[in-house]
Amino acid sequence: MRINRVVLIGAGNLATNLGHALFRANISIVQVFSRTRQSAKQLANALHTSYTVNLNEVVNDADLYIVSIKDDALIERVSEIGAIRSDGLFVHTAGSVPSHIWQGTVARYGVFYPMQTFSKERIVDFENLPLFLEASDSTVLASLKELAKCLSHQVYEADSLQRKYLHLSAVFACNFANHMYAISAELLEKHHLPFQVMLPLIDETARKVHALSPREAQTGPAVRYDKEIIAMQEDLLKDDVELKELYTRLSQRIHKH
Amino acid sequence: MRINRVVLIGAGNLATNLGHALFRANISIVQVFSRTRQSAKQLANALHTSYTVNLNEVVNDADLYIVSIKDDALIERVSEIGAIRSDGLFVHTAGSVPSHIWQGTVARYGVFYPMQTFSKERIVDFENLPLFLEASDSTVLASLKELAKCLSHQVYEADSLQRKYLHLSAVFACNFANHMYAISAELLEKHHLPFQVMLPLIDETARKVHALSPREAQTGPAVRYDKEIIAMQEDLLKDDVELKELYTRLSQRIHKH
Repeated sequence: MRINRVVLIGAGNLATNLGHALFRANISIVQVFSRTRQSAKQLANALHTSYTVNLNEVVNDADLYIVSIKDDALIERVSEIGAIRSDGLFVHTAGSVPSHIWQGTVARYGVFYPMQTFSKERIVDFENLPLFLEASDSTVLASLKELAKCLSHQVYEADSLQRKYLHLSAVFACNFANHMYAISAELLEKHHLPFQVMLPLIDETARKVHALSPREAQTGPAVRYDKEIIAMQEDLLKDDVELKELYTRLSQRIHKH
Repeated sequence: MRINRVVLIGAGNLATNLGHALFRANISIVQVFSRTRQSAKQLANALHTSYTVNLNEVVNDADLYIVSIKDDALIERVSEIGAIRSDGLFVHTAGSVPSHIWQGTVARYGVFYPMQTFSKERIVDFENLPLFLEASDSTVLASLKELAKCLSHQVYEADSLQRKYLHLSAVFACNFANHMYAISAELLEKHHLPFQVMLPLIDETARKVHALSPREAQTGPAVRYDKEIIAMQEDLLKDDVELKELYTRLSQRIHKH
């Protein structure tokens, strides 16, 4: 079955980016649902479609319902969402939520997990974005694959356990790496230095692991084990005990590796 | 004074990359010194110049001696190195070593700090690389600036204290961010998933902070405070107590911020 008519359940960062990607691939987005009127309206407007804030007003004739809401909310509200159309096809987009949450609620379901960092303020290109699919049966899988390939060149299958580890790995490579940028930005700000100067370094750090493994790419005082520099940098952080401890811990880990 | 003849003291990651940048800018590198014969030879060959492994064989008629050795070694051996030519111009390239280490050894000195992650296996472009300069006097500063501008469009002055904070910030934005990639790579490897799939995410995470501040760019379970997902991910790490603790600590930091 070819998927033509899609409903977006959720209007957050991921739904917004996926919505734009579907729109650009000429997939018809027939409706946007969000409990937050402003989000629903904003995304629906951007995608030239309608919206609702009531789950019981969601249309029941779509080919696919893409559910992109907070993971906790997804687990809680799955049966309520599935009730929109018990013979409908439902997918969620969460890395760490297993596909079996749909079991007993709907017969045809799956997961459509785009592994990327999404913000509403920045619409990303899906072309080279890895999409991980899981499906309740081979017919559903074929439909999801066809749709996914309209969006990206990198379409993979992954079961719920693999996806859990993908998501956990992504938390380190993206969320925690970004937090390192945030700490860097804070330190610079505190000492009246512009974060801008850090960008060539951040870019090269990311580019480097295309060619070398992260272990080979590692540089800095910790891997060289420059003890005096490490002690001096710990001293610079002495007013922020928690941050100092984090510095020590990460330096030790890098040295041990 | 225009700098034409340069000696490189050290043949490690930074010296190798800086050597290539100077070579491409048609600066004459008259000699390479390293205590490790293989490193000295390898870099000298690449730069079509000669090398020595004895400090007392270093030529005493160069315009500039660029000292790029391990920070601890630099502090220890500064007077020995300065003795090459007491009226010579010496710079070191270390972010965290103050310029005053040269005081009492040589009269003309400075710091030439390229803020980047360098590996021998990967020669980087200096064009957009921030170079931070410090000098013993304005004549030296002018000479270093002229040289620096042959290599990069981003030439700044920074005193030793500012440079310390730049280096500390760089440790977070680069060394620690790369360690997050390394943890990600390890987790993926353990579960037979290719690190390759993480690259689009790593790239976007880096690109994103060109447009949004790291705080605005933050995504993931910690910032959303998806408690069930955080607990589940902690559980995935339960066999590695240290890594689990790191996960918890970073998630809490992100949530608090």
